[in-house]
Amino acid sequence: MRLLLVNPNITASITETMADEARRAASPGTTILTATAAFGTQYIATRPEAAIAGHAVIDAVAGFAEPHDAVVVAAFGDPGLAAAKELFDVPVVGITEAALLVAWTLGRRIAVACMSDRLRVWYEECAAEHGLDGRLVAVRSLADPPSDITRAREETAARMAELCRATVERDGAEVLIVGGGPLAGLARDLAAAVPVPVLDGVACAVRLAEALVGLAPRAPSRGSFARPPAKPSRGLSEALAARIERRDEAD
Amino acid sequence: MRLLLVNPNITASITETMADEARRAASPGTTILTATAAFGTQYIATRPEAAIAGHAVIDAVAGFAEPHDAVVVAAFGDPGLAAAKELFDVPVVGITEAALLVAWTLGRRIAVACMSDRLRVWYEECAAEHGLDGRLVAVRSLADPPSDITRAREETAARMAELCRATVERDGAEVLIVGGGPLAGLARDLAAAVPVPVLDGVACAVRLAEALVGLAPRAPSRGSFARPPAKPSRGLSEALAARIERRDEAD
Amino acid sequence: MRLLLVNPNITASITETMADEARRAASPGTTILTATAAFGTQYIATRPEAAIAGHAVIDAVAGFAEPHDAVVVAAFGDPGLAAAKELFDVPVVGITEAALLVAWTLGRRIAVACMSDRLRVWYEECAAEHGLDGRLVAVRSLADPPSDITRAREETAARMAELCRATVERDGAEVLIVGGGPLAGLARDLAAAVPVPVLDGVACAVRLAEALVGLAPRAPSRGSFARPPAKPSRGLSEALAARIERRDEAD
Amino acid sequence: MRLLLVNPNITASITETMADEARRAASPGTTILTATAAFGTQYIATRPEAAIAGHAVIDAVAGFAEPHDAVVVAAFGDPGLAAAKELFDVPVVGITEAALLVAWTLGRRIAVACMSDRLRVWYEECAAEHGLDGRLVAVRSLADPPSDITRAREETAARMAELCRATVERDGAEVLIVGGGPLAGLARDLAAAVPVPVLDGVACAVRLAEALVGLAPRAPSRGSFARPPAKPSRGLSEALAARIERRDEAD
Amino acid sequence: MRLLLVNPNITASITETMADEARRAASPGTTILTATAAFGTQYIATRPEAAIAGHAVIDAVAGFAEPHDAVVVAAFGDPGLAAAKELFDVPVVGITEAALLVAWTLGRRIAVACMSDRLRVWYEECAAEHGLDGRLVAVRSLADPPSDITRAREETAARMAELCRATVERDGAEVLIVGGGPLAGLARDLAAAVPVPVLDGVACAVRLAEALVGLAPRAPSRGSFARPPAKPSRGLSEALAARIERRDEAD
Amino acid sequence: MRLLLVNPNITASITETMADEARRAASPGTTILTATAAFGTQYIATRPEAAIAGHAVIDAVAGFAEPHDAVVVAAFGDPGLAAAKELFDVPVVGITEAALLVAWTLGRRIAVACMSDRLRVWYEECAAEHGLDGRLVAVRSLADPPSDITRAREETAARMAELCRATVERDGAEVLIVGGGPLAGLARDLAAAVPVPVLDGVACAVRLAEALVGLAPRAPSRGSFARPPAKPSRGLSEALAARIERRDEAD
Repeated sequence: MRLLLVNPNITASITETMADEARRAASPGTTILTATAAFGTQYIATRPEAAIAGHAVIDAVAGFAEPHDAVVVAAFGDPGLAAAKELFDVPVVGITEAALLVAWTLGRRIAVACMSDRLRVWYEECAAEHGLDGRLVAVRSLADPPSDITRAREETAARMAELCRATVERDGAEVLIVGGGPLAGLARDLAAAVPVPVLDGVACAVRLAEALVGLAPRAPSRGSFARPPAKPSRGLSEALAARIERRDEAD
Repeated sequence: MRLLLVNPNITASITETMADEARRAASPGTTILTATAAFGTQYIATRPEAAIAGHAVIDAVAGFAEPHDAVVVAAFGDPGLAAAKELFDVPVVGITEAALLVAWTLGRRIAVACMSDRLRVWYEECAAEHGLDGRLVAVRSLADPPSDITRAREETAARMAELCRATVERDGAEVLIVGGGPLAGLARDLAAAVPVPVLDGVACAVRLAEALVGLAPRAPSRGSFARPPAKPSRGLSEALAARIERRDEAD
Repeated sequence: MRLLLVNPNITASITETMADEARRAASPGTTILTATAAFGTQYIATRPEAAIAGHAVIDAVAGFAEPHDAVVVAAFGDPGLAAAKELFDVPVVGITEAALLVAWTLGRRIAVACMSDRLRVWYEECAAEHGLDGRLVAVRSLADPPSDITRAREETAARMAELCRATVERDGAEVLIVGGGPLAGLARDLAAAVPVPVLDGVACAVRLAEALVGLAPRAPSRGSFARPPAKPSRGLSEALAARIERRDEAD
Repeated sequence: MRLLLVNPNITASITETMADEARRAASPGTTILTATAAFGTQYIATRPEAAIAGHAVIDAVAGFAEPHDAVVVAAFGDPGLAAAKELFDVPVVGITEAALLVAWTLGRRIAVACMSDRLRVWYEECAAEHGLDGRLVAVRSLADPPSDITRAREETAARMAELCRATVERDGAEVLIVGGGPLAGLARDLAAAVPVPVLDGVACAVRLAEALVGLAPRAPSRGSFARPPAKPSRGLSEALAARIERRDEAD
Repeated sequence: MRLLLVNPNITASITETMADEARRAASPGTTILTATAAFGTQYIATRPEAAIAGHAVIDAVAGFAEPHDAVVVAAFGDPGLAAAKELFDVPVVGITEAALLVAWTLGRRIAVACMSDRLRVWYEECAAEHGLDGRLVAVRSLADPPSDITRAREETAARMAELCRATVERDGAEVLIVGGGPLAGLARDLAAAVPVPVLDGVACAVRLAEALVGLAPRAPSRGSFARPPAKPSRGLSEALAARIERRDEAD
Repeated sequence: MRLLLVNPNITASITETMADEARRAASPGTTILTATAAFGTQYIATRPEAAIAGHAVIDAVAGFAEPHDAVVVAAFGDPGLAAAKELFDVPVVGITEAALLVAWTLGRRIAVACMSDRLRVWYEECAAEHGLDGRLVAVRSLADPPSDITRAREETAARMAELCRATVERDGAEVLIVGGGPLAGLARDLAAAVPVPVLDGVACAVRLAEALVGLAPRAPSRGSFARPPAKPSRGLSEALAARIERRDEAD
């Protein structure tokens, strides 16, 4: 099985951090392929950055030439996720979506621990847009974000452990989600230090994508996730334009 | 990986029907073990039957001696699911829960197609108790239930295909879930006949259970899903009493 | 009027505590009958214990031979309540349900005060399953549960008064519900000490059951609360099997 | 026990119709007292009429000199209900509130059958304001309202029976509420003709008021239902002004 | 454009305070007319006072003889708002409604800062009745209400600034609404002192009313906001009776 | 006052259609400026098209050099709306948001009438993301979309009138919103033919933007709508990159 992990930001080292965790989390026999956004920002922490990333994600998938069985959108907040589900035929999973769905099976009170206060409202918004905020009891953040986003995992490990424990104590959280692509892998480090399950979005998305590939649901030909009819476009990358205008089918 | 599929009703042939689908759906390397309720009803279609089954499910898991990595509760309506999650240390997945969570990744408007009008309100209730009714747009049923529950899949295939298509048409369903353990496997037969994905609860639960085993979340020592403290009991099976009274730990 | 109070746990002295309060709360002319679960746990504080109790409740009602006009399910969390409503023809009321419905008439912000932190999430879950969590602003618990559950009322009275007052202050509660069957009667002791109404689930259920008997609603022959059709069973008590298989009608 | 039934409209014959049903529904030993709005409209079917009635209800209760143990606000839509709960010390129950709360104990899918299309949205609004719309599946109305509102019960009996049956069939209603004070008593006539319980708001309110009197909750001295502090007024009836300005306490 | 600002309480000096802010907020070319309730209370802080005010509002509008293009109901809590929308043909806007709708365009987390603890639950109730509580994260109040309601703005300015800042800090509010007609104009004073937008209900209502007049929506002849059919009345002011009985149309 | 109307699709003639309606709807003294997306699709009817448009909207606003007091995002579905609110300092209003907020003041049951079935689920999604789906009772669409999107208004007028009337009849809609930027202006044509208010998103947005400019709320320096901190970018237009990297401030 070949999973395409798309990094919606432009930073290749974060792509690698996430791919490392994806490979640790994957079943034997799963290959992790990667793509990094061709345009956008160093990382994604606000709505305008996510708006750009939404475009960049479908651009990256459209432009990815190698065969793949499913796509993982690997930024917390899941930019472009629903758009990608609608535009492409393979299963597409977001790391926030996946972490919330897995959390749903493990506890009643779910919380997200993240790097910065700026992310809190937007993460709540994202959960609400998925319709999965019903069990979300808190989004908690570090007082100070990491100084170097590419080393976020190492820099924040001790403080994130403390934040997770405090969230269990204060908010009664029964499952913790580590929020933020740059923190991929950190959940493993925290498992022993936190008295409830701690989930990594990338790991959850990889396992959930594998499950979906195994279930092999058919692509819909009806409803709002059926592939859109062809529409004229301008100013898009050749690959995305071809997909939007349905010229790819003629290939 | 060894998955224990528990049939909450007393009918061994339904256990076999569900185990067959579980084996078809499972990854290579996954072994499906089975247990059938020691007490209860022929099948489960009402709340009293589900109340009995809730007890029977934890009784069956407690009494299952062979090692296993996860449990699938295999009756629509998920009797005893939250109780089992709380009482046992391995991941436990219900077939309704699993089908709804998978459906969440595939479409915005989810519908359940089931065998009998009697099941409708109770299935809606079940989705609401999971907090997963937000996207559930309809529960539709056959006008006449099958005459022989153990042959439900064969008896209803043509009518269920028609019901699914009508639900797409009338309710705008974007994902269909075939509701009812005795119908395990039917979704495969319907895939070509219905223009949107059709999900089988048993298959979804097996794949989701595999994903959870792969993620290996720790068992919580805090919160409402931590294992309950010991409590005196009376009138329970020896295995269940041992688990409730925490005498099993002394073993 | 004859009301059957069913204690879903196995402890006869708790049945008596609750029956005492039921008798204090009842109208002149109402007789309180009692039944205690034939199997289960000493008291009920977790989902697995409630799952067993759900079965035990319908078992106890089915096996209760004397005529009665209504049933009160007397454990907080209302195990087996909906199942009993569906299976039996007389009105059935749960103590959580009753307390919440009465609270609804008295204030906008409802809170539950209970004995142990372990109960909190499960009580919230129960309110949500009744669809009556919309005005529930808090479930608060004692820091330390009582050491002897059969003397919970005496042991916790002073601390529960303090907890109720704190909940008014901190959460703006306008009505308090004392949560937990073993605390039956305590609300009377607290009335003078708390500046808002304090409700006892058993008392509320007795009065609500009387009201329902007075209204004499017909048993439904349609919908999900109509008595279930006969279904083969195994391993149930003779009385419950007869009710499930509808052999009791032949009597 | 003495219950004051307040008719929020100005039509004495409707007061009598409702008092008749109240007396039929009451326990032995309950006396029904009545008051009719001093100002307002012939009956109440719109928001402006209800706005006037809200004032008229608290005016009528303030002006009612005889002792009474509880108040029933007897117009569907419950005008002035929350205001009366806040202003007076005895329990106050509305007929819509009461019917919905009783319905909650009897089924999952509740419907209201009423006389006129004009009432539908407003009744839904009323249920939502009580926070009790979660199980309300339909408000259905006659195609043609009765020509004489004071003979509504007789004039519409056959059509209301048909409407109730259709609502069970079409909407899956499990409990029916007959909506509208002028229809008081009709539910009794429909019981045999409809396959699910049919509730009368007046009857439900009388029985629920009795239950509340029996429970004797204390009047709150904290929260939004504590009696308001004195406030200067102008243009009110002497009795209402005295209550608002708290001059009644000096009596 | 001529806007009628109706003060639902009886205090003329508060009418003037609100009219002053209305004039400051209005577009050039907008004339502010005023009416003060003919009956009611000095100000409005509880449900009974609001119930009286609901009647007084439609009474005042019905009795206002000069032509006007829209109505602003100028008491927080919007007494009589929906009734006035239904009864009159021009657009009617409430100050709470307007402030919430404007807040919706400016932030995700909305809070209300008000003068007294007594108002909190009722304001939340009002937001819920508008269906606009989804983004309301807090209603916060001063520890001590102003001693002279007619000088509330001056008396509380410093404390309200502090309260607003604390609400941003503690509740993460992204937009503040100053709650309470007597505080009209205060928001202007606070703008520099609070790091997020601070809204004045009167100003918002004036601007929103202007927008509605500009859009010139037709008065509905269908639905629950179509003008009610004529209905006999008693005890109302001549003008209101004429409107209710539809005798004004003959004029 | 100068309002910038941004067309998120690439079709200049649709920009002109919408600008025409904006000018008709605007107050005297308001100037309508326009910008058309530099990249994207002919019109926007699906999530991938909206994802691209979200980027294009903030790109267009960043690149618009002339001074302006507010922005109107003029595509139904409001692509990029929240991103633009966060990134820019002037008020930003979306046409769906504006139409829903105005509708909220006019009726309880809101419906959208649109050109194509494909838009329905996505429009519902958009209303839900605004938290304004609580009163949305239906989204209805023409059986056949217009053959030429740039002439949609003329081509569909008669059928849209019929659709609106049917939606009033069938769904009890009390306010209609004409959904779809290319239909700008059509609501005026329908007013006489439909018995309830019919709203045009562009007109509502223009008037609401004027109101916001008049209210002059301060730009937040706290919360999730404060302007984002600078962040490195790649592959963006010079103007958008400058805004994202906060190089524009140095100008």
